[in-house]
Amino acid sequence: MSLEQVLARIDAALPEATDRLMELLRIPSISTDPAFDADTEQAADWLVRDLQSLGFKSEKRPTPGHPMVVARHEGAGPHILFYGHYDVQPVDPLSQWARDPFDPAIEDTAKGKVIRGRGSSDDKGQLMTFIEACRAYKDVNGSLPGNLTIFLEGEEESGSPSLVPFMKENAAELTADLALICDTSMVSLGVPSIAGQLRGMLKDEFTLHGPRIDLHSGHYGGPALNPLREISRLIASLHDDAGRVTVEGFYDGVPEVTPAQKAQWADCGFDEAEYLGSVGMSRAHGEAGYSTLEQQWARPTIEINGLWGGYQGAGSKTVIPAEAHCKITCRLVGAMDPDDVRRKLRAHIEARLPTDARITWDNNLEGSPAAVMNTARPEFEAARQALSDEWNREAVIVGMGGSIPIAGYFKEILGMDAMLIGFANDDDAIHSPNEKYDQQSFHKGMRSWARILDRLAR
Amino acid sequence: MSLEQVLARIDAALPEATDRLMELLRIPSISTDPAFDADTEQAADWLVRDLQSLGFKSEKRPTPGHPMVVARHEGAGPHILFYGHYDVQPVDPLSQWARDPFDPAIEDTAKGKVIRGRGSSDDKGQLMTFIEACRAYKDVNGSLPGNLTIFLEGEEESGSPSLVPFMKENAAELTADLALICDTSMVSLGVPSIAGQLRGMLKDEFTLHGPRIDLHSGHYGGPALNPLREISRLIASLHDDAGRVTVEGFYDGVPEVTPAQKAQWADCGFDEAEYLGSVGMSRAHGEAGYSTLEQQWARPTIEINGLWGGYQGAGSKTVIPAEAHCKITCRLVGAMDPDDVRRKLRAHIEARLPTDARITWDNNLEGSPAAVMNTARPEFEAARQALSDEWNREAVIVGMGGSIPIAGYFKEILGMDAMLIGFANDDDAIHSPNEKYDQQSFHKGMRSWARILDRLAR
Repeated sequence: MSLEQVLARIDAALPEATDRLMELLRIPSISTDPAFDADTEQAADWLVRDLQSLGFKSEKRPTPGHPMVVARHEGAGPHILFYGHYDVQPVDPLSQWARDPFDPAIEDTAKGKVIRGRGSSDDKGQLMTFIEACRAYKDVNGSLPGNLTIFLEGEEESGSPSLVPFMKENAAELTADLALICDTSMVSLGVPSIAGQLRGMLKDEFTLHGPRIDLHSGHYGGPALNPLREISRLIASLHDDAGRVTVEGFYDGVPEVTPAQKAQWADCGFDEAEYLGSVGMSRAHGEAGYSTLEQQWARPTIEINGLWGGYQGAGSKTVIPAEAHCKITCRLVGAMDPDDVRRKLRAHIEARLPTDARITWDNNLEGSPAAVMNTARPEFEAARQALSDEWNREAVIVGMGGSIPIAGYFKEILGMDAMLIGFANDDDAIHSPNEKYDQQSFHKGMRSWARILDRLAR
Repeated sequence: MSLEQVLARIDAALPEATDRLMELLRIPSISTDPAFDADTEQAADWLVRDLQSLGFKSEKRPTPGHPMVVARHEGAGPHILFYGHYDVQPVDPLSQWARDPFDPAIEDTAKGKVIRGRGSSDDKGQLMTFIEACRAYKDVNGSLPGNLTIFLEGEEESGSPSLVPFMKENAAELTADLALICDTSMVSLGVPSIAGQLRGMLKDEFTLHGPRIDLHSGHYGGPALNPLREISRLIASLHDDAGRVTVEGFYDGVPEVTPAQKAQWADCGFDEAEYLGSVGMSRAHGEAGYSTLEQQWARPTIEINGLWGGYQGAGSKTVIPAEAHCKITCRLVGAMDPDDVRRKLRAHIEARLPTDARITWDNNLEGSPAAVMNTARPEFEAARQALSDEWNREAVIVGMGGSIPIAGYFKEILGMDAMLIGFANDDDAIHSPNEKYDQQSFHKGMRSWARILDRLAR
């Protein structure tokens, strides 16, 4: 076997690998919307068949929600489990897409070729980098590389309700020596990155109920409690003028950034001007006194993700609506406990309700704590060297603003460490209209995994 | 001719009058939504035909928007113009209707029979009280009562864009000795009411633009400006803790309520407990220091009628949206000038924008000042006596929280005073799901107009 031959095979087969990704991207596997259940199932079937064709013992495994894909190849060496997810985010607002989100295409941009389409970056493009690396290895060597399990989920974008039960029921099968996860981004274009820490997340949602019915703003405007005004007041009360969260006890368990972290992050290649400027911001708008990276990686947040009530149609409607609605996510760091934060957030809101208003909470939304990776394991150094070789740039261990609860579940339920390496870029517009994945990420991502698998097998 | 015979004819023909109203209610003449343009036109056609059958010279008259209906009967006595509108409000949220809004029905309720359906109260049921009174008069006397013009609009619920130009172009034809308007409510159940003053209205709408694109709340949560949080802060800034509007100069031109008004209103039969309690309120939530009636009739407001941004679908979406949206109406009193208030409101919002945010305003939304009626005219006393006869309760001259700009236009453009008499009730849920009109309002409304026309003819 020769790493160079495998890399050459990846280069030669890039068109076919791209075609396969396009085929997967054309399946609208939106897991949050039941209207797309059949499509989501179809994406699982597609992956099962593809992995079978590579020689994996590959199965679609039922759950109460969307199925898991579990593929096994018994081989020599340490048992490596690769995790990814085949479901994608909803596409709205659809009107802001320049093309059909599920009719992907290669586009030329000022920064190079990109693969445009929902899921191209999150996570179909990323998970295919690993599968394509395996394919190239098999094409060259006639067999898959080492002792592998591939574990693909279809509910990541809808809170992974089946994941923990499935992992508990299938613990023996899923417990490997190390998990690899490809669902993260690089700190800057061309800077290979390994996640050292991830923020946790808490989701919540409420409806503010005011008048018994929608009211006419002439007959009732003045005396009526207006839920839209009240919900605005409640949301405005969550932060002070310095951008700090005002919920009592919110910062319990939040560690200060250490000098060592500050030094590491100062040197990690983060391009602040690009990060802010590419989305139209001239400065960081978070907590005063913290750098942009600290606000993103090391500080907790309360963000409003959805807010609505009253009339949204064309023209005007003189209504005072009976209800207003709000979707919230908090990002958590350090030892913040999701249940504890939820209690405090709700107490803050409830304490500020006016008479004649009441709140109903959605009690079906999950939370997960922050995670810190075991970067002292030798596999991290092996991966760092493999990535540095591929990208001609020292790989870095960085924080991540996002939340990938499965890293914590792997540790908690299976006692298994995880290593998160991804090739996305901050401008990929994941969860947004016009999502893309750089062709360079796809191509060098495959090559990176080939190099990493090669080093892990040594 | 005998008033008693006309009243008896109204009583006997109530079933047929109800059937005719039902037919009109089945036409979904939603003027704000172009999808219903053909239906709106059909409602105009229906009324033209019905008025022709009564002996009016009745025509559908084109405008750049929805047509006007103008019907003329030359007779003896003072020229009376009756105004109503045949268009209706949108029906959303449709899910909150107990029946199809355009499949009306008579329902038995604890308070008596009601006619349920969109437009039953606002304004089809009300305008038909006048037309049915004319019909009964003709049935008894063989001709229509007096010197009449009926003028019906199809754009009242969408801001009446064609009304002023049409009135200017047809001023000679439309100028009568007095206008009658049936589009208001009674101050309490069973208390006949004539409007002495109406609030004006100003509509505005804006979009707050933040990041260039929707962002992921993991990758960008913290550093990103969140338009939903910012729009909440802006809306919350419009009122202080005492419910007073904080926009600088907002109260310019607002008269204090006079002792005479206070005395009249204290004795007007307003049932505060019913007004508040029927919609689930235990107290008035407007400006501290003003009574419920003062808050409704004599104080200006800023109300949010629509607020939206981000994800509203099932489940969660970890998005920081690029935009947030807000629909606003202000109610105006006294000498407040709509254009002046608009400038001040916009200046307040713009002055509070953070860096990296910008606002776009909808510049197509109209405003109209408050109106005070000429209640010293003898027709007001005649109508007061007619109403008192019909309802066995002293009729009252009251304020109105709503805005009926046409009263001001009649005065300003045609030099014509208006008298507003309506039979709606505050619990009619106009502009809301499950709109209804009390059968008593419909029946005694017809009888009231018969008595008023009788007195005006003397």
